[in-house]
Amino acid sequence: MNIKEKIEQLSETESKRLFKKDFLLTWEKSLDDLKAILEIASVLKMMRDTNISPKVFDSGLAVSIFRDNSTRTRFSYASAANLLGLEVQDLDEKKSQIAHGETVRETANMISFLTDFIGIRDDMFLGEGHKYMVEVGEALDDGFARGVLPVRPGIVNLQCDRDHPTQSMADLLHLKQHYGSLDALKGKKIVMSWAYSPSYGKPLSVPQGIIALMTRFGMEVELAYPEGYDLIPEIVDIAKKNAAESGGSFKVSHSMEEAVKDADIVYPKSWAPFSVMQQRTRLLKNKDVKGLDELEKECLAENAKFKDWEYDEHKMKLTKNSDALYMHCLPADITGVSCIAGEVSKDVFEKYRIPTYVEAGFKPYIIAAMMFGQRFENPAAVLGQILNNGRKRVRFE
Amino acid sequence: MNIKEKIEQLSETESKRLFKKDFLLTWEKSLDDLKAILEIASVLKMMRDTNISPKVFDSGLAVSIFRDNSTRTRFSYASAANLLGLEVQDLDEKKSQIAHGETVRETANMISFLTDFIGIRDDMFLGEGHKYMVEVGEALDDGFARGVLPVRPGIVNLQCDRDHPTQSMADLLHLKQHYGSLDALKGKKIVMSWAYSPSYGKPLSVPQGIIALMTRFGMEVELAYPEGYDLIPEIVDIAKKNAAESGGSFKVSHSMEEAVKDADIVYPKSWAPFSVMQQRTRLLKNKDVKGLDELEKECLAENAKFKDWEYDEHKMKLTKNSDALYMHCLPADITGVSCIAGEVSKDVFEKYRIPTYVEAGFKPYIIAAMMFGQRFENPAAVLGQILNNGRKRVRFE
Amino acid sequence: MNIKEKIEQLSETESKRLFKKDFLLTWEKSLDDLKAILEIASVLKMMRDTNISPKVFDSGLAVSIFRDNSTRTRFSYASAANLLGLEVQDLDEKKSQIAHGETVRETANMISFLTDFIGIRDDMFLGEGHKYMVEVGEALDDGFARGVLPVRPGIVNLQCDRDHPTQSMADLLHLKQHYGSLDALKGKKIVMSWAYSPSYGKPLSVPQGIIALMTRFGMEVELAYPEGYDLIPEIVDIAKKNAAESGGSFKVSHSMEEAVKDADIVYPKSWAPFSVMQQRTRLLKNKDVKGLDELEKECLAENAKFKDWEYDEHKMKLTKNSDALYMHCLPADITGVSCIAGEVSKDVFEKYRIPTYVEAGFKPYIIAAMMFGQRFENPAAVLGQILNNGRKRVRFE
Repeated sequence: MNIKEKIEQLSETESKRLFKKDFLLTWEKSLDDLKAILEIASVLKMMRDTNISPKVFDSGLAVSIFRDNSTRTRFSYASAANLLGLEVQDLDEKKSQIAHGETVRETANMISFLTDFIGIRDDMFLGEGHKYMVEVGEALDDGFARGVLPVRPGIVNLQCDRDHPTQSMADLLHLKQHYGSLDALKGKKIVMSWAYSPSYGKPLSVPQGIIALMTRFGMEVELAYPEGYDLIPEIVDIAKKNAAESGGSFKVSHSMEEAVKDADIVYPKSWAPFSVMQQRTRLLKNKDVKGLDELEKECLAENAKFKDWEYDEHKMKLTKNSDALYMHCLPADITGVSCIAGEVSKDVFEKYRIPTYVEAGFKPYIIAAMMFGQRFENPAAVLGQILNNGRKRVRFE
Repeated sequence: MNIKEKIEQLSETESKRLFKKDFLLTWEKSLDDLKAILEIASVLKMMRDTNISPKVFDSGLAVSIFRDNSTRTRFSYASAANLLGLEVQDLDEKKSQIAHGETVRETANMISFLTDFIGIRDDMFLGEGHKYMVEVGEALDDGFARGVLPVRPGIVNLQCDRDHPTQSMADLLHLKQHYGSLDALKGKKIVMSWAYSPSYGKPLSVPQGIIALMTRFGMEVELAYPEGYDLIPEIVDIAKKNAAESGGSFKVSHSMEEAVKDADIVYPKSWAPFSVMQQRTRLLKNKDVKGLDELEKECLAENAKFKDWEYDEHKMKLTKNSDALYMHCLPADITGVSCIAGEVSKDVFEKYRIPTYVEAGFKPYIIAAMMFGQRFENPAAVLGQILNNGRKRVRFE
Repeated sequence: MNIKEKIEQLSETESKRLFKKDFLLTWEKSLDDLKAILEIASVLKMMRDTNISPKVFDSGLAVSIFRDNSTRTRFSYASAANLLGLEVQDLDEKKSQIAHGETVRETANMISFLTDFIGIRDDMFLGEGHKYMVEVGEALDDGFARGVLPVRPGIVNLQCDRDHPTQSMADLLHLKQHYGSLDALKGKKIVMSWAYSPSYGKPLSVPQGIIALMTRFGMEVELAYPEGYDLIPEIVDIAKKNAAESGGSFKVSHSMEEAVKDADIVYPKSWAPFSVMQQRTRLLKNKDVKGLDELEKECLAENAKFKDWEYDEHKMKLTKNSDALYMHCLPADITGVSCIAGEVSKDVFEKYRIPTYVEAGFKPYIIAAMMFGQRFENPAAVLGQILNNGRKRVRFE
């Protein structure tokens, strides 16, 4: 399909919850909204790949707030902002005057006078990240309503305690491209499996995001993890509900080996148990360094019981045609490469390494699409104008 | 007044000390210069608000040097630069090779080969910040005169030990908008009052900037502080002289409660006494950590004698119509919000919270106007061309 | 020569190894390649100086990776990227997820989805910096070949263990401008001399870059240093070979005083001996803090034997007409300014201070030229189109 046809297709979707709305959780969006994001992302990628510049902003800031380390998402956000014409301005909470007591509502307004988007990563504290984003959003609503801000900046969730929508949507676009269409995903078996890692305390947002999103497209979703490594219960419930509605299925099980049998797609990734994350959140809040150390030791010892939860050649052979599509949000803990024992064996990772890079490459466009949808009431029309306009990204090329 | 009329009005001011001049201290500028800055800022804001892009630079750097923490000013500077088409490049003195001994004149040139502006915050050392900016300016003059630099970058004072012109000019624009005109400020009583804060060592530049600027517009300016909390004497003298010239008045007093009576505008804000800042500067230079700790203890004990210097409902009721406009450069120390006892009570702050945000929102435009005035001999003509040109900030919107 | 003539001249050079090639080492490039870089840099500078904007990118990232401190090169890279329309995105390895084990090939791809250039400074470890750049390049080749990346980003060496091409090429352009042409450099005597510094462990890349580059233009190159302060032997061999081919000469000697006699150009600069850098690399890799301390003491004691290796008025008087052109990559260790005893005396530095600033001012354009040559198959044609297009850098000026 060429760009023009893609745009026409997009113009037929009935997305209603993108314009002027933040993108915080995929389950707040309609199916049409999600499809529209995928289409916009694809169009933007095709434009970039064919030297058409979709720079719609002549100036404006895209603020980023990273409360946790990031490479991939940081560069994806910067790339998305830059593609559309915005300049990233990072709020480094250490270099700022955000002392104890400066309120979120104040900071949110102070950084937004000429800002179009705020991207936030806040995934360290269970029960906090999403709440923080909502609070920022309310402050922006208030600031805009009361004439402080000329534009209500859109918020893009760059990972919270509940969801990691820029990741899961990039993953979905990867699947769509891989299988040719969203319809083709129906009935495909995807296994989101816990995997062993020598570190602990990894966020729950990726597995939660995956099960809540993939269940909406009629897939057979299986969530596998050792007993005790639960996710947030409400989000598991959302996955169940989604599966029922989409005509797919959702199942929880407790053996990677069993789960991967006949899988079309596997997503083996470590995370910390929900209950551990709750403890950890309490300890972090109290700055209980000793408690954190003890918890880490305990958890690593507990983790170590499940070293066989590595996705290796033996398990790969159990999947559909011994060749399930391997997915990962990266970086993976690769046995013999980045650690002694990890989430995936060296050979298996190497086999699917390039596809995982391709998967990661959709993220900048997903973020740009979220911005685009938040900003333009009729994205298809604007994309059409960009296409007609034909401005080149690299001039004289 | 629409944009066109504003621009015509601007074309009638006779500002002479903006073009090719740094903006370091408001008292170095003529009244017409200051009025021109306010007009340019207003026009740029109106353009931004109506989707007209005043991007005059197709490339170029706006360097920032922050020798103290900043959120508001950092984002304001970034916003201003971005609005005009410049990219901020921060000189992080920790990540650079600016070892002991690399001279200011060398660094100033090295960061300026393709630079249009340098914004500097240097407010920690009394007697240093302004001096440093002048030194940088001389190095740039020399570099430009001798063919090192293609353009003499303009310097914007983002706060020094003497003045905080981007703040005080934003405050002035806020007052102008609030009361409708500069003429309307004549005879209005503004109280710049010290206020209690649980921290010490806050710079003097805000109160100094306010008394030196507001006395130029015929206002009745009262500076209130506990005995001993003096500002730099020369700047107090400037305020006196200004008041005499402008037909306003200037008065120093020592009770917040007395001072706020019948005030139209109150600006309650903590600062450290001049003599303490002198001691602190000496101790900081000698890296005398113990001395600094002792000074802090002493000063906090001294401050604590003046906990009643809180702007609260009782004091608010003493002001004109019990409703003086409350101003603050933010973040304020709010009793019961950001501290146990602070500069302002929770209820009073809440009442004027949104106006303080609006006040802060003028800063990016004031900075952009300072840049604009420094760069274009005839700002009104250039603004007129931008308007005719009609380039949109957000295309297809 | 005007811009148009410069562009015509450029169109006649037969550079073959710029397009789609990284710029890592000058000795990998043909003489025509180097000449083309100089011409492109000159044209870009003339354009900038006459308010013509050579912004060829409408969006895109220029990633920087600084594994060592930098001011000059950081700002030069930022300026070059900005001039061409790219936004710098710094990979701060401390703020990223580049944990132990994330592979170079993965990171290289993850930061490159919408990236046009990667500038790398990695000069701390002997045997590492160049190797790292090559490894990044191979990862990018692979990513591009396998469809991960839409464009193969070009790499610009911002200083490695072997060469510092953006410095040496800026130095060469300075000499070309100073003497009027490259031909005029034939037979000129340039002395690259070790000089005393109160610090140790300075990289070898500048002296290596200078001797390897200047020998290609028929110059009489003399490398002077105290016995033991050798450079990497292979690069000294390259200099010898180059001199033989270009009809110049290359000589190693061991007295600054003798070497500078009749010199046209002197480049007195400290560096650490090759053998010390090898030890230091081992110690740094092992994080042997004590060993590093001891090595530092030893080396400083050894250095201190050569305090007379200061370029001072006495030595200056021995040069051609007592007025050899003094060069330095800056910042210099200036006796009585930045240290008690250093590389150059205060008076001599002061005499040539402005020329060293002019020298430094070519670096942004050299970097921009390297980017330009990597990206456009026919740089002259593109420069011609920019000229015809006549887009202004500062509009309405």
